Order: sequence, then structure tokens, then C-alpha cells
Amino acid sequence: MLNQKSTETSAQDFYAWAASKQTRIEQVLEKVLPCANLAPEKLHSAMRYSALGGGKRVRALLCYAAAELCKTDFLIADAAASAVELIHAYSLVHDDMPCMDDDDLRRGKPSCHKQYDDATALLVGDALQSLAFEVLSQPNLTTIFVQQVGMLHLLAQASGSAGMAGGQAIDLAAVGKPLTQAELETMHQLKTGALIQASVLLGAISGTEAQITAVRTYAAKVGLAFQVIDDILDVEADTSTLGKTAGKDADSNKPTYVTLLGLAQAKLLAQQLYNDAIAALIPFGASAERLRELAGFITQRSF
Amino acid sequence: MLNQKSTETSAQDFYAWAASKQTRIEQVLEKVLPCANLAPEKLHSAMRYSALGGGKRVRALLCYAAAELCKTDFLIADAAASAVELIHAYSLVHDDMPCMDDDDLRRGKPSCHKQYDDATALLVGDALQSLAFEVLSQPNLTTIFVQQVGMLHLLAQASGSAGMAGGQAIDLAAVGKPLTQAELETMHQLKTGALIQASVLLGAISGTEAQITAVRTYAAKVGLAFQVIDDILDVEADTSTLGKTAGKDADSNKPTYVTLLGLAQAKLLAQQLYNDAIAALIPFGASAERLRELAGFITQRSF
Repeated sequence: MLNQKSTETSAQDFYAWAASKQTRIEQVLEKVLPCANLAPEKLHSAMRYSALGGGKRVRALLCYAAAELCKTDFLIADAAASAVELIHAYSLVHDDMPCMDDDDLRRGKPSCHKQYDDATALLVGDALQSLAFEVLSQPNLTTIFVQQVGMLHLLAQASGSAGMAGGQAIDLAAVGKPLTQAELETMHQLKTGALIQASVLLGAISGTEAQITAVRTYAAKVGLAFQVIDDILDVEADTSTLGKTAGKDADSNKPTYVTLLGLAQAKLLAQQLYNDAIAALIPFGASAERLRELAGFITQRSF
Repeated sequence: MLNQKSTETSAQDFYAWAASKQTRIEQVLEKVLPCANLAPEKLHSAMRYSALGGGKRVRALLCYAAAELCKTDFLIADAAASAVELIHAYSLVHDDMPCMDDDDLRRGKPSCHKQYDDATALLVGDALQSLAFEVLSQPNLTTIFVQQVGMLHLLAQASGSAGMAGGQAIDLAAVGKPLTQAELETMHQLKTGALIQASVLLGAISGTEAQITAVRTYAAKVGLAFQVIDDILDVEADTSTLGKTAGKDADSNKPTYVTLLGLAQAKLLAQQLYNDAIAALIPFGASAERLRELAGFITQRSF
């Protein structure tokens, strides 16, 4: 009874913490995104439409949680969290375009190219990517400039052809092809894993070597778990819960963890990855509580 | 007679210098672009197709010339020159896409989306942009990290919605609309001017305050002259000389300096901008010779 109460309190604490960080990242993004009444108005309005007011902000939460463990300055954490969310937002805008996934719906709203037009969506993605690097390279963010250069390098690598964009290219090439589990894992490690790992590592920038090594393992496991859950939800959830078109991957004959392993095995894999992520945090006890809860949040989500 | 000979010698020197820098930037880009046999192969091959083996490399030349004036370390100049060329290459790939300018031809070859496909072209542009920031944030480039952060910030601002991407958005919105000369100038200042200015300023990163102030003016004038000449060439040159579709802007009812001012006045404006660019360099005498010659090269080009 006592234990259950304590778990409930902890869960309430976590949701309050997550809500406060979601509010915070929204405010930070509000500030770094150009005003909609500033020329070019349509582009700026479409950038705000695409980057504000939606999403679970998992990457920002991971960044903030890692920053709390590693006592990273909160202004640096803000910059890092907004940079990864901007990269993520740009990737969604481009992924939804007709020449890519051709998806009309994103977070329950018309996707950027439906709300505006294809050319604007193209520029929105391009400008959001630039903005991510602008935010992270802002002057007076830190006096440890070597660290700031390192953060920029990390974000650039995670976004490019050895990271997110590369994963997207492998995904495109994989449609209709049988993949082994190892190949599927490589694809996801690049497509979503690289940016999730960057989110954690950027937040952990002021950590000790032991902390950084541990959160790197944690991030790799959580990143993969995130994708396995995504594949499960694509099958189990409906479009209104998901806020994007459900069953899309199965319909388009994309290899997923569910098509490869079956639903039950995919769920077991997600559980195993969760366990591994938690195990990596053991040395840090209570100070890693937020990261631990986040791993639970990510592997138990139903949206 | 003597004077003419000396001018000829100087022109030969300049062309030899430009050719050596064009070779150099090609080698630097060869090295920083991922190998085509590295997965994802198609993306990497398309990135190399789009960024290598073509173009006048005006931005790299401006960067190297400014670096020579300001005695900027040659490794920093290499990184800066390749970063601006990568941003430029990405912008061409995205601009050529069907949802944008829909151009099948670039530098006399099929444009990226024609040679590959639209989805690949989208990812090529995205990954080339990331690569630009990766190159400029590389470790061990310099020990003056504050300077490196400043360079990254400058490039990000020049690329985003207050720079190149913003100019492209204004350009899109302007099709078929009458613009004043001031509005046209703002559009071009963002669309091409911002990256040209960044090229010069990145090369000038080690300069004195007086040098930086002077090259900023120089870059603004040269950037605008570049665009005026582009508009003149769009009318006067043919497709085979241009390596891209000629008469495209006039056909698509885009406002240009020629439609606004007429051909003769547009040529006069280019001359005036050239004169202003040269005037800004007067205090630096012979040490600014390459920048001076480049201004001539840009305003007298016929391609």
C-alpha cells in the first residue's frame, strides 16, 4: 500500500516535471522562432506552425533530464533542447512532403505542405535546420567555447548523412525489401536513434566521463525502444490517438519490428531495451531518476 | 603599351590564382564529402554529384581572397570555403526541385532530382546543409574556439530565414508581382547577398576591424552586382553558355533588374556597384588585389 502510494507520487512528480519542461521548451522555441509578422511572413508563420504547439517533446525532455543528472547550466540545456526539437521539426516537415512519405496529417493537424504549400514546406525545413545551428552557436551561451563547438559538431553529425538524413535514405531504399533485424536496427539507429542520442549527450555536456559513457548506452537503448514502440503503435493505435495516419508503415510495405518479429516479440524487445537502459543508470542512483522515468514514459506510451 | 602588358600579366596571374583555388576547393570538398561506396550509397553518390565538379566557385574564391588579405590560416579558409560551397550546393539542389523552380538542368548536367529522384534530392539538400556545419565545427580546426563559434553563427544566420532561405521565400512570393527597386534589392540581399557576404566575412575572420568593415561593404556591393549580372545574363546568354535554362526568370514573370530598369540601366548599375566595391578596398592597396580582381571577374562574367 505504502509502496503503491510512493510509486503514484513519483509518477505524479514525473508528469508534473515533464509538463513543466514541455512548457519551458515551448517558451524557448516561441522566443527563438522569428515572429510571424516579420518578413518573409509566410515562411515565418509556417516555421512557427511546424515547430510550436505540439508533440511530446521527447527529445527536449531527454536533454533536460540528462542536464539535471550532469548539472549542465540551464541556459545551455535550453539551447540544446530547442536545437534538437528544431531539427526534429524540420525532419517531420520534409518527411511529410509528397515526394517522401506524402502524409497529410501531423500531430492531428494538416501537415505543413497541406496547410501551406510544397515550396514553403521545403523552405521551412531548410530554415528550421539553419535555426537549430543558429540557436546552438549563439554568442554568450557559455564561456567554454570548445564545449560549444563540440555540441555543434555533435548535432551536425547526428543530423547529416551519417545520422538522421542517412537513416531516412536507408528507409526509402528499404521499402518493399526484406531486411534482417541487424539492418533494420542500423536504419533506426540513424533515422531516430542518432538525434535521440544527441539529445541526451547534449544535455549531458557538463557530465563526468562515467556519466557520459552511461547516458550514451542509455540513449542507444531508449532510442531503439522508441522506434520499436513506434512500430507497435502503428499497428495497435488508431489515427485519432496517434495524431498521424495509423497503419501507414504496414500499408506501404515498410519493414518494421512488428513485421519482422511479430507483435509479441516486438513487445518483449521493447521491454528488454527498457531494462538495458535502466541498468546503465544504476551507478547514479536517485540523481538519474528523471532519465529512468523517461525511459518508462517512452516505452509505455500509447501515442 | 607597357600598361596593357602589365594588365594582361595581372589578368593571367588572377586566372592562374583562381584556377588553383578552384582545384583546391574541389580537393577539400572531395575529402569532406562521404565516399559514394559508404552506406547509404545512393545518398552519398547524389551528394557528391551535386557538390563536386562544377560551378565557378565564386563563394570559395571570395573566401580565399578575403583570407589572403586578412592572413587567415589556410585550414580555416578551407573549412569556411567548403562550408559556404556546401550551403550553396544544397540551395541549388532544393531550388531546382519541381515544387520550387522545377529546373531540369544545372551546370550543363541533369539537376539532382532528374539524375536521381525527388526524395533523394530533398535528402541531399538536407544532408549537405548538415555537412556544412559539420565541416565548420570540426575539432582541431583552430584553438580560438570563440572565433569558430562566431563563424558557425555567421553561417547559420546567412543560411536561414533572415538570409538565403528567407530570400528564396520572398522570391517565391514575388512571382507576377510588381516590386520596387528597394524590394528587389532586399530580396537579393537575402537570397544571394547573405551567403556571398558570409563567404567574404568568414575568409576575413582573422582581419583587423578596419579590414572587416571594408570587406563587409565590398561584399554587399559585389553580392548585389552578382545578382544584377545574373539577371542580365538570363536575358543575354543562351542555355548552353549558361549551363542552366536561360530566359527562365523572364518567362516565369519574375521581377528582375532588367525588367525593372531595362538592360542599359541594369548594366550601368552593375558598373556602379563594381566601382563602390573597389572603392571600399582603397585603404589596403596591393594586399586587396585578389578581391579587386574578383569583383571584376564577377561583374564581367558572361556565364
